[in-house]
Amino acid sequence: MLIGKQSWVFQNKPVILETGVTGGPFESNGALPEDFDLLYDDLWMAQDSYEKAHRLLMEKAVEIVLQKGNIQKEDIQFFLAGDLTNQITPTSFAARTNAIPYFGLYGACSTSMEGLALASFIVNYKGAHQVLTGASSHNAAAERQFRYPTEYGGQKPPTAQWTITGAGVALVARSEGLTGQFPYAVSATIGKVIDMGLKDPFNMGGAMAPAAVDTILAHFEDTGLTPDDYDLIVTGDLGEVGRETAYDLLQQQGCLMDKEKFQDCGLLIFKPDQPVLAGGSGAGCSAVVLYGHLLNEMKKGKYQKILVVATGALLSPLSVQQKDSIPCIAHAVAIEYGTVC
Amino acid sequence: MLIGKQSWVFQNKPVILETGVTGGPFESNGALPEDFDLLYDDLWMAQDSYEKAHRLLMEKAVEIVLQKGNIQKEDIQFFLAGDLTNQITPTSFAARTNAIPYFGLYGACSTSMEGLALASFIVNYKGAHQVLTGASSHNAAAERQFRYPTEYGGQKPPTAQWTITGAGVALVARSEGLTGQFPYAVSATIGKVIDMGLKDPFNMGGAMAPAAVDTILAHFEDTGLTPDDYDLIVTGDLGEVGRETAYDLLQQQGCLMDKEKFQDCGLLIFKPDQPVLAGGSGAGCSAVVLYGHLLNEMKKGKYQKILVVATGALLSPLSVQQKDSIPCIAHAVAIEYGTVC
Repeated sequence: MLIGKQSWVFQNKPVILETGVTGGPFESNGALPEDFDLLYDDLWMAQDSYEKAHRLLMEKAVEIVLQKGNIQKEDIQFFLAGDLTNQITPTSFAARTNAIPYFGLYGACSTSMEGLALASFIVNYKGAHQVLTGASSHNAAAERQFRYPTEYGGQKPPTAQWTITGAGVALVARSEGLTGQFPYAVSATIGKVIDMGLKDPFNMGGAMAPAAVDTILAHFEDTGLTPDDYDLIVTGDLGEVGRETAYDLLQQQGCLMDKEKFQDCGLLIFKPDQPVLAGGSGAGCSAVVLYGHLLNEMKKGKYQKILVVATGALLSPLSVQQKDSIPCIAHAVAIEYGTVC
Repeated sequence: MLIGKQSWVFQNKPVILETGVTGGPFESNGALPEDFDLLYDDLWMAQDSYEKAHRLLMEKAVEIVLQKGNIQKEDIQFFLAGDLTNQITPTSFAARTNAIPYFGLYGACSTSMEGLALASFIVNYKGAHQVLTGASSHNAAAERQFRYPTEYGGQKPPTAQWTITGAGVALVARSEGLTGQFPYAVSATIGKVIDMGLKDPFNMGGAMAPAAVDTILAHFEDTGLTPDDYDLIVTGDLGEVGRETAYDLLQQQGCLMDKEKFQDCGLLIFKPDQPVLAGGSGAGCSAVVLYGHLLNEMKKGKYQKILVVATGALLSPLSVQQKDSIPCIAHAVAIEYGTVC
């Protein structure tokens, strides 16, 4: 149901019943290796291109969900997913493999919550018994497409971010008849494109921060909630620069919270001593941290209510070459952990 | 509501209340110029790149919907749209201009019906009062990205298709309180990725035909309907080769209809003597033909019930270079014309 201008509430508590999370070598050595279901120790993953490795990350994440949940893919109605690659081929090829009716999404690094919002809406209104949704990225595939081939050894400023290698997939299902405790989607706020005129593709966190702030403020206005209603408000991949900027902007707007409550998936995923510049990014970043680490923490009792705000920079190499500024977007989904029936 | 395996029915009759359709010079000289709201007589459209012209096509189509419907953009909750360009920048930049909360979609040339299916579902369940959905393409932007720069003068085989220049946008709204007759969405069938191993990017119609057939058969199985229940079954951009193939495959599967009933937007849009090889294609193709010509024909009484099956080839130039075959998909939406309250 629409509430306010741009938010939905999900009265029927669509449940995140199972998840699958895959990652690469940097993630193995990161801060959260135990929250992955499968980690590859090299970027090639026995494939003959990085793009095929990227596809494999998504295929395996889907496979893991099915295995863990003991679910047949025929019992899943839809697959809503996307990535950052031109024409989102890794996701579409994974959709060919799983053969589940498919909605391709493009929201850059906001894709994870674009997908979870739509999946929750569809399941909430019985448009499906259960659906899969997710997002993925691959560092080397992204580097050569968006920046330079890794072998070129190009220098980057400290504001640049490190595309994570990984895929996160969630099975969203109806709550009817489920006993026990589960994470479930409570509401979602869909973002507008915000562009403050920034043009530096090596400072995406700074460019995306205003979009995150716009969506967070819209969420609170639409729902009547405040930061006090959440145990954690976590952005997708603002990194160090973007997190600081977003926190300051929120404070300026009177949206006050302890800084500890305002985290970023791009900072959570890596150790401080890893050479990832301002932090992790990529369409997979918020997907793997939410569907791995954060849901595990909810199950352990650390958080009961969280707001996940996936942030996306909707640029392309061509739009940068044509001197366009960077249009950004953020979508938020509120998730609670508890009984659903 | 889910019916069968992969279809929705929309009991509340989400209405296509208004449309905006823009096109370029080839479309001006095509078979349906009177069904466009705005036609540009050159491909540059006073912009300094084809990609910016592409963005303009979508921006203007949205503007036209708002003007024709006398609607403020603030009264529209969501914009669901996409195109074929890398990172769908023309659509995302248009979303920046209209500032409506935005779901970016990627379904290649199936995007139009992916968007209309989701828009109809959202409006049907009161996730919005009204939403915009659409798709667009630009011949020269697509040529240089997917094939060769036009100036190179590369030869193409007669199975190749001609990306149309245009954008089609629909305003989908709740039917409550509307008097009079309108086109409205009745049901939708979401396609699986189908890949028969074809690798020739200059014969996309042939590659996509099995996906169209799969979705059409799924639609009839899920809904219990037959071709007799429709006045027209129209594919997105199969072109001459794909239409023949799809019609043959349907006949082999026992799905029989007059060939006259089985049309293709890529063949309807151009005159037979235009040099467009096997016919039109592109994400805008089914969008402009449906939201322009076909809805006009429905209003004139030619058709009362149609099934629109937008077809997409989910390849990329890189996937072709890496010798992958072409994964294809098709999404169908059934539209009726009549009273809604």
